[in-house]
Amino acid sequence: MPRILPIFLLCAAVTCITFSASADEKPNFIVIFCDDLGYGDLSSFGHPTIRTPHLDRLAAEGQKWTSFYAADNVCTPSRAGLLTGRLPIRSGMASDVRRVLFPDSAGGLPASEITIPEALKEFGYATACVGKWHLGHLPEFLPTRHGFDSYFGIPYSNDMNRLDRETSQLVLAEQENFAAYDVPLLRDEEEIERPADQRSITRRYTEESVKKINELKGGPFFLYLAHSLPHIPLFRAPEFKDRSVAGIYGDVIEEIDWSVGEIAAALKEADIEKRTLVVFTSDNGPWLIFDTHGGTAGLLREGKGSTWEGGQRVPTVMSWPGKLAPGIVSEMGSTLDLLQTFVSLAGGSAPEDRTLDGHDLSPALFGTGPSPRETMFFYQGAQLYAVRKGPYKAHFTTYTSYVKQKPAPQDPPLLYHLDHDPSERFNITTKHSEIVAELKSLAEAHRKSIEPVEDQLAKRIVEGQ
Amino acid sequence: MPRILPIFLLCAAVTCITFSASADEKPNFIVIFCDDLGYGDLSSFGHPTIRTPHLDRLAAEGQKWTSFYAADNVCTPSRAGLLTGRLPIRSGMASDVRRVLFPDSAGGLPASEITIPEALKEFGYATACVGKWHLGHLPEFLPTRHGFDSYFGIPYSNDMNRLDRETSQLVLAEQENFAAYDVPLLRDEEEIERPADQRSITRRYTEESVKKINELKGGPFFLYLAHSLPHIPLFRAPEFKDRSVAGIYGDVIEEIDWSVGEIAAALKEADIEKRTLVVFTSDNGPWLIFDTHGGTAGLLREGKGSTWEGGQRVPTVMSWPGKLAPGIVSEMGSTLDLLQTFVSLAGGSAPEDRTLDGHDLSPALFGTGPSPRETMFFYQGAQLYAVRKGPYKAHFTTYTSYVKQKPAPQDPPLLYHLDHDPSERFNITTKHSEIVAELKSLAEAHRKSIEPVEDQLAKRIVEGQ
Repeated sequence: MPRILPIFLLCAAVTCITFSASADEKPNFIVIFCDDLGYGDLSSFGHPTIRTPHLDRLAAEGQKWTSFYAADNVCTPSRAGLLTGRLPIRSGMASDVRRVLFPDSAGGLPASEITIPEALKEFGYATACVGKWHLGHLPEFLPTRHGFDSYFGIPYSNDMNRLDRETSQLVLAEQENFAAYDVPLLRDEEEIERPADQRSITRRYTEESVKKINELKGGPFFLYLAHSLPHIPLFRAPEFKDRSVAGIYGDVIEEIDWSVGEIAAALKEADIEKRTLVVFTSDNGPWLIFDTHGGTAGLLREGKGSTWEGGQRVPTVMSWPGKLAPGIVSEMGSTLDLLQTFVSLAGGSAPEDRTLDGHDLSPALFGTGPSPRETMFFYQGAQLYAVRKGPYKAHFTTYTSYVKQKPAPQDPPLLYHLDHDPSERFNITTKHSEIVAELKSLAEAHRKSIEPVEDQLAKRIVEGQ
Repeated sequence: MPRILPIFLLCAAVTCITFSASADEKPNFIVIFCDDLGYGDLSSFGHPTIRTPHLDRLAAEGQKWTSFYAADNVCTPSRAGLLTGRLPIRSGMASDVRRVLFPDSAGGLPASEITIPEALKEFGYATACVGKWHLGHLPEFLPTRHGFDSYFGIPYSNDMNRLDRETSQLVLAEQENFAAYDVPLLRDEEEIERPADQRSITRRYTEESVKKINELKGGPFFLYLAHSLPHIPLFRAPEFKDRSVAGIYGDVIEEIDWSVGEIAAALKEADIEKRTLVVFTSDNGPWLIFDTHGGTAGLLREGKGSTWEGGQRVPTVMSWPGKLAPGIVSEMGSTLDLLQTFVSLAGGSAPEDRTLDGHDLSPALFGTGPSPRETMFFYQGAQLYAVRKGPYKAHFTTYTSYVKQKPAPQDPPLLYHLDHDPSERFNITTKHSEIVAELKSLAEAHRKSIEPVEDQLAKRIVEGQ
């Protein structure tokens, strides 16, 4: 049941945020964010052989969200959306030039954006970032410049700066050849290891997170644990090697599940589980082209890099013992909603000086009403390809990810009823012209809301590449 | 933990079955068998919008079997396999002439077959059959001639004897026009209603089953509840109409889930839940051609009528409070194993005068060892198309169900590692020639074990059709 928090007005230095609630009322927030984990990759989301008992327990005792969306279908824009509560197109973090940031990128999340940790600091939160960043690796873009008190992690994807171009990435992972990827490990803003030994990266992220929980348990705190895996190349600790009957991908997911168990145990041991909301989710769908090193979107169509459901609907579990209305939430939610939800639970309201694309999910969390998210916009780079409102999703353009194929304009748009047909198999556009018209208007109005900003993903350190 | 039952020899009239155990040690058995329910149709098997809380609870407290196979990929042979513990090809119940029995069929399950109720009667079991039969509707083939003390149900598929050929089956279901299907409802061997009012069929099957549980609670008993749904046309009780956000198919599944809850409640009320093994499963995969009136195989490839996994791997839940080792069983099991498992739990051993294709699943049920099922044979009609051994499945012939397309011979066979690749996406035949050779030999040896019998599905009441 919700605690109805009184809301007062207060102008903060960075922006205007309203808040209230005394310190001991403020819950802690932990976001556990996987990289390329597919909708069907957890046992509780239907995988037959990958074992995820810790996540399954959290889902059974808490909430399993079955229509929860990442903010985008690839890494960098998805993360920008999560941390700002704004579609990445608004911050220059979605682009038609490059889909994500690379080691030669000169751009990153602009300082003008308000991130979750920045918003929460207004309410006295301590903040920690552990894991993959991918919102700019130059010093001015690092987590410590975006509201996090500390950072420990790899600042971009684990397959970048690849040295061994002769051997396939899958074989390198099988050989556990982490040295083929010259990726740095940072402590705050300092490089402490290069190449990062990825065989122990999940374990080390977990240990760092548990340490932070114990340091910050006086609360309130926000911990953002963004795993580098199961993005390829796959690595896991020796004790997880060949542990899963599902193969190397299963090993990696089962180590992440172990990690979730460690976090849950640390919260329990610190006696703060009842004042900590844990959100577990993924940055986008599975990378389907990588054979058995990629995951599965389950019954959903397509995967990472696509505006079909498999690209952006992600397996999501929320846990807050004694607070959440336990059960399955099939209404919509998104990583875009976390900022507003957290700020609201901290006793405030969202920044009002900018367009936000999120909603406060409290009614759905506490069972007091439906989810306030009624729409979702699906971008491919800087282009709007699809819109969902209620159960209906219209595709104005379709595209199969990671194949050399041109996007296909759809006129009339393809229309699917996602609650009846989650696999997007039965196009019902001819039966519902009024809904198609409504979704077209919605798309048009949305496009008009987008103001031009500098493309952060197009900028490169070395010109002319 | 298993009770180790001493086994003695005793020759019964019908056949030689060994048994022991005193009456009060004998558990009750309930099989709840759905029609065309797909692997991905339950919440606990990954469906985002269909709600199945009763089944999910049974799965969480009992066992969720994730590699459990129906005996065939269509109705009649699948049911023959379940009730006899023998592949339907051995009883003449798999055929290249017709895939299932029809109202003009003259054949049925031969009297020479030993069914589960017949085997259990040797140990003093009362037996009841409720629901769809589809193993012969002429009197000599009815449940009451095959070991069941009583029968209440529709003797074949709910879409048979269709009167209204102008209107589509989907529209008829939407109109709730049950009278368009002139199917009989039988009480034992007597027709008591025609056309059966299918809008109340799930409710009436459930009420009959609860009545039987109360009548027979002194035990031991075997109840076989074979739902007529979610086979198309879809019907449900008024109180389930528009109840599911997943649409009419969701309504139907949610009524079946309600029914499971009623069975569980009746067992609890009768105080026999701790001596009753409940097995919930399906006769084959989803009928994919029927738009949103058909289910989903989740992450599995293809559906009903196919030897791909989606055709035969079915969502399976086993419950026996206080007895089963709770958890997820990803090792193989099959409806072919139920006869031997039940007979063993009743204190006996299986008939020895014939070839059986089942195994006693007790080690997996009680956590004392691996599942004894190591192989599975996949038939299309009377032809062996695929073989699984351990995680490897070889397809010697492939076929897309319900399309006008010839079966495609595969040489070399396609090979998949199902534990790593449950969706059968990555053919690894060139990397594993020794495994392919082993599976070929296994198929050859299996084919040799099949003795010619009369084709029961080819026989018609009216000649020349």
